[in-house]
Amino acid sequence: MTLDLQPFFSPGSIAIIGASSNFQAISGKPFRFLLEHGYKGDIYPINPKYDEIKGYRCYKSILDVPGPVDAALIAVNFKLVLPMLQQCVKKGVKFATIFASGFAESGAEGKALQVKIGELAKESGLGICGPNCQGMVNLKEGIVGGFSASFEIRPLLKGPIGYVTQSGALGYSIFNLAQESGVGFSFIVSTGNEVDLHSLDFLEYMIEDPETDMVVAYLEGIKNGKQFARLANRALELGKPIAALKVGRSEIGQKAAASHTGSLTGSDAVFDAFFRQKGIIRADDIEDLIDVAALRQSISHMPQGKGLGIITTSGGAGILVADAAVDLDLDIPELDEKTRETIMEVIPPYGSALNPVDVTAQVINVADDFMKVLQAMLDNPDIHALVIVITMISGASGHKMAQDIVKMAGVSDKPMVVAWTAGERLMGENLKVLSDGGVQYFNSPVRAVKAMGSLMRFSAHRTEVLRRTESPRSPGIPEGAMGTASAILAETGKSLTEHQGKLFLQSYGIPTTREDVATSQEEAVRIGESIGFPLALKIDSPDILHKTEAGGLKLGISSREELVSAYDQVLSNCRSYAPDARIDGVLVQEMVSGGTEVIVGLNNDPLLGPTVMFGLGGIFVEILKDVSLRVAPVDYEDAMSMIREIKGYKVLAGARGRTPMDVEAIADVLVKVSCMAMDLEDQISELDINPLLVLPRGRGVCVADALVIKTDRG
Amino acid sequence: MTLDLQPFFSPGSIAIIGASSNFQAISGKPFRFLLEHGYKGDIYPINPKYDEIKGYRCYKSILDVPGPVDAALIAVNFKLVLPMLQQCVKKGVKFATIFASGFAESGAEGKALQVKIGELAKESGLGICGPNCQGMVNLKEGIVGGFSASFEIRPLLKGPIGYVTQSGALGYSIFNLAQESGVGFSFIVSTGNEVDLHSLDFLEYMIEDPETDMVVAYLEGIKNGKQFARLANRALELGKPIAALKVGRSEIGQKAAASHTGSLTGSDAVFDAFFRQKGIIRADDIEDLIDVAALRQSISHMPQGKGLGIITTSGGAGILVADAAVDLDLDIPELDEKTRETIMEVIPPYGSALNPVDVTAQVINVADDFMKVLQAMLDNPDIHALVIVITMISGASGHKMAQDIVKMAGVSDKPMVVAWTAGERLMGENLKVLSDGGVQYFNSPVRAVKAMGSLMRFSAHRTEVLRRTESPRSPGIPEGAMGTASAILAETGKSLTEHQGKLFLQSYGIPTTREDVATSQEEAVRIGESIGFPLALKIDSPDILHKTEAGGLKLGISSREELVSAYDQVLSNCRSYAPDARIDGVLVQEMVSGGTEVIVGLNNDPLLGPTVMFGLGGIFVEILKDVSLRVAPVDYEDAMSMIREIKGYKVLAGARGRTPMDVEAIADVLVKVSCMAMDLEDQISELDINPLLVLPRGRGVCVADALVIKTDRG
Repeated sequence: MTLDLQPFFSPGSIAIIGASSNFQAISGKPFRFLLEHGYKGDIYPINPKYDEIKGYRCYKSILDVPGPVDAALIAVNFKLVLPMLQQCVKKGVKFATIFASGFAESGAEGKALQVKIGELAKESGLGICGPNCQGMVNLKEGIVGGFSASFEIRPLLKGPIGYVTQSGALGYSIFNLAQESGVGFSFIVSTGNEVDLHSLDFLEYMIEDPETDMVVAYLEGIKNGKQFARLANRALELGKPIAALKVGRSEIGQKAAASHTGSLTGSDAVFDAFFRQKGIIRADDIEDLIDVAALRQSISHMPQGKGLGIITTSGGAGILVADAAVDLDLDIPELDEKTRETIMEVIPPYGSALNPVDVTAQVINVADDFMKVLQAMLDNPDIHALVIVITMISGASGHKMAQDIVKMAGVSDKPMVVAWTAGERLMGENLKVLSDGGVQYFNSPVRAVKAMGSLMRFSAHRTEVLRRTESPRSPGIPEGAMGTASAILAETGKSLTEHQGKLFLQSYGIPTTREDVATSQEEAVRIGESIGFPLALKIDSPDILHKTEAGGLKLGISSREELVSAYDQVLSNCRSYAPDARIDGVLVQEMVSGGTEVIVGLNNDPLLGPTVMFGLGGIFVEILKDVSLRVAPVDYEDAMSMIREIKGYKVLAGARGRTPMDVEAIADVLVKVSCMAMDLEDQISELDINPLLVLPRGRGVCVADALVIKTDRG
Repeated sequence: MTLDLQPFFSPGSIAIIGASSNFQAISGKPFRFLLEHGYKGDIYPINPKYDEIKGYRCYKSILDVPGPVDAALIAVNFKLVLPMLQQCVKKGVKFATIFASGFAESGAEGKALQVKIGELAKESGLGICGPNCQGMVNLKEGIVGGFSASFEIRPLLKGPIGYVTQSGALGYSIFNLAQESGVGFSFIVSTGNEVDLHSLDFLEYMIEDPETDMVVAYLEGIKNGKQFARLANRALELGKPIAALKVGRSEIGQKAAASHTGSLTGSDAVFDAFFRQKGIIRADDIEDLIDVAALRQSISHMPQGKGLGIITTSGGAGILVADAAVDLDLDIPELDEKTRETIMEVIPPYGSALNPVDVTAQVINVADDFMKVLQAMLDNPDIHALVIVITMISGASGHKMAQDIVKMAGVSDKPMVVAWTAGERLMGENLKVLSDGGVQYFNSPVRAVKAMGSLMRFSAHRTEVLRRTESPRSPGIPEGAMGTASAILAETGKSLTEHQGKLFLQSYGIPTTREDVATSQEEAVRIGESIGFPLALKIDSPDILHKTEAGGLKLGISSREELVSAYDQVLSNCRSYAPDARIDGVLVQEMVSGGTEVIVGLNNDPLLGPTVMFGLGGIFVEILKDVSLRVAPVDYEDAMSMIREIKGYKVLAGARGRTPMDVEAIADVLVKVSCMAMDLEDQISELDINPLLVLPRGRGVCVADALVIKTDRG
């Protein structure tokens, strides 16, 4: 992003091109909303049909406007959009927002028109939002630049949440629901077809806004993985959570996404890995998105870790919250004796002073007993946030309870959330105490813990990332690796042969089997004897992919004689299998024993960029799909967590009497592959190290076979 | 259950023992609620302190009441409960409900008192609900027999949902939330400590009620697995879904459950398996429970399968629903050409006539276009239910849309649910059209599809179960199996030796290795030669559990000479390893080659009874815990689905060039183990067939080792 979006979100003047005097029409609404929500800058309606609209002078063309125009809202039919944009350029308008549909989403003609608009944006420097979008809102300054029915509500709630949506209709309906839940926003933008400005540009801007504490997004796809990584890192640094509802998880969902928008939907597993890597909160529903935003808005301090304290008036509710907390990978710390004793003093014997703490319905009838429990839990250093579940406590007891919670929330730097599992008609007054006191509540215990848990996980992840200022273990990549590797790529075909692939990996310091290509019996013997028996022979041919089938593979060769005869046999087998194949020789290769097979892979995700994969070999990958993914760059700690995260990790760690394998050496390979991927992103499309043989701890790893595929430059 | 619960839920007369004239006190509320909600039978307040309460004659003792008393609500302190119950027995009361706490949940003294109450119930035939419960409600007849604040609402909504809760406080707060969501109930009961009548008794009664279409339950544990299975089967037969929120999924949750109630919480994995087996809808939150009940109440016909049609006004919302539907294992049928064409005629080109169908916001502006889309989807035979997602469609268009949906819901026998993703303030009128028309809506698309999906899965499961009138493959158990097996158990110690275990399995027709115990070299040779080489030798001793460690195991014996020397060696190894061990001989055993190792297990779950387990051997079970479970009885189709359900199934099915193994023969073993478990439930506590060797398809299976542990009768 090179443009400063300040004039987009805070324009000093706005022209509405195609403004209508019918304030109920789509082309009339933006004008009305600007007026009604209190826009303070200059407004210029543009429409040759009118001289004035509602007392404002209406211009025939934007070129007739006397003063400068920061932003234009383009409310004309799609066929008229391009000439209007050209006038905007001439006028020196900084940003234009196009509402009309009829572009890339509508077939070939619309697509062509959209391409032209994109070119105009690039050439002129005019920043364009849309087309096919529903506009922008800046509630900090009362600027409502769109036509959504959600803007009919008065007043719209201002608050600390920034919001970007790739769907106009669904996006602004989420906004409406959020507003009815009390969530206030700083900026909102609907990005439509993203011909120029896209979601990440807006997210990046919002993250930096000092009055914005959190950003939420509805996403179908993204355009720039590096930018996403950069802004997510920045959000971690600033301690501002990003929560995203990214649809298209399922295959069927992905199909619909591709037919719905112009942008590609990336493989969802990569997105998921990326979100976890960057601490981005992934919402599964619009409700999750609204809940976590509502909670973030209500708390003054983010939780500082994953230790959850649970207080409830009903044992069952405590179990329900504990179940959900465990699913969310939160910690439910055991309480120390002091905390337990303090609690036991005030609760009845059939309550529980374990975490979850069950105060029962009785404790709240006694003056400050409930407050004492709150205080004891908040004082406990292992507890970073509280979920308080209250069941059917109505009347004065419930009122006092709500007041106690509000009081403690006001003085504690640990956040809390309430689940009051009873309805408005009975609990209305108590719930009002909470909302007036700025304490977020839900009816559902699970929603309460889910929202709090999302923030806790973000914070825990943030702490972890900030702790790692430098990678604790240098990858040990040879100097000039990138040059050496590029030179190899320059001399090879689209797919590297096994031997070329290994030379390529060696350039980044990745250990491979000792081997060389022989073009004669004598050479094979010389190479073989310098490596030492046992050996493997493999045909070296760019045209023979299935070596076993071709008879081009001999394993376990244990003597000079065997080697000589195997050499001849491999060649003659392959010549008769594929008479036209180019044969470069026979690969004479060390046979490594005692290793466990793992797989290291690299793929270029079309949206998120180079992605490193790790898995255990054999059935683990083939049948169980037991792999872990990270978007590059991957540092040593990332790599270790990739290894630990697969289900079969215990096989490597030495479970049940197995030898512990050299997982640190695997981590080194993953880091090196990641560095290689970053260096050569434009040159390599895929890499499969399969298998990487892992030896017992301290003895390293060894690439036994590798496939490198270069990027297609067609 | 032997008692008829009709007088419990529809008593002709109710005595309130300990009734207070203070209608705000817990002991005064039941009287007030009976009056206010319109109980039509006789009410007898019992309290020596009063002569009358609110114009009702108050009796000193229940024994003074002139007429018969069907039910007593016992509102006295726990210390007075037992004598009051004794009076109830004397009076011939049929059911008593005890509100007081202070029993098993409160320590040893309370526990002892509860035991006495249990004995009284058993001896006298008085049916007891509670103690520590919040009473019963029958909204069909306006009988509200409890003290929960949730009864303050007027009127309470009558409807087709039955509800049983093991938690009073949480349970009635769920009831209150459900009522505020418009869910009407037939019967509700809070079961407390379940000293006599328990949750399953009440569920069983409600299932049979003709005005009850669905039952929901909040559960912490259950007392009788067979009864649960019976009532779940009956619910399937009747087509009435059971939805249960069963807490204690996590280990931490389970700890809290144990300290909270008197009942044991069974292993959650077994519960989960049982729920899936019986088509019980498992709710993860109180919201899920309420949502599915609300949806069931709104529809006139249950969905007839898992084919989901999705119609949306925004592409993104369609993707969101599709993602959730795939997670829920629903089908999203591709539309046939006819359906697609009908839809394409009315939607704009940027819409989508695939499923999810995106009608866009435009179609609804044209008279009957939306109706045509609804009709086309409902006519499609692959579609069994509709989820309709509407975004920000307000005003007349939204109104018409709501009317169209109500109209179609009234005439179609396929159920539908709406997700209207916008708030009450803008959409209130449209939402009112839906609710007045009896169409259930949610704000959240995911909640809508989750609720509908639960009903669809129930129906699909029901169809599947009803189709199977008889098991399609007879287990082929030898006649007299139970007698033979019992005789073996009668003669053996707590753990059977390997050889005893195999004889035991053979009695049920389960194939094992050929083998016999030799007590001399000569015998070993005779047995060995009749089996044929190669052979295995294993020490046969009830005192040596770790044969390998003791040197009591020799494999791959290929000749008579080897056999002779191995025999002596095994014996001498074991004698020096454990000089005091009883040695019964040496097991001479067939060695089976070419098999894949699987594990078949049996465990007696304390709550749900005998549970059959299946898994792949080695790392699959040890490291990946990749097992499937079913509560017995397991028929052949259940067994096949157990086998297919493990992640490593492809290993058996013949993936990637592997030989397909004899999975049908595994299924036979699972069925036989299940039959054995049912026959000998009181006698066997655990069984491990590990490994069961599975040979290639058509060649069967063979038990290579087995451990049988008898039930402790201490």
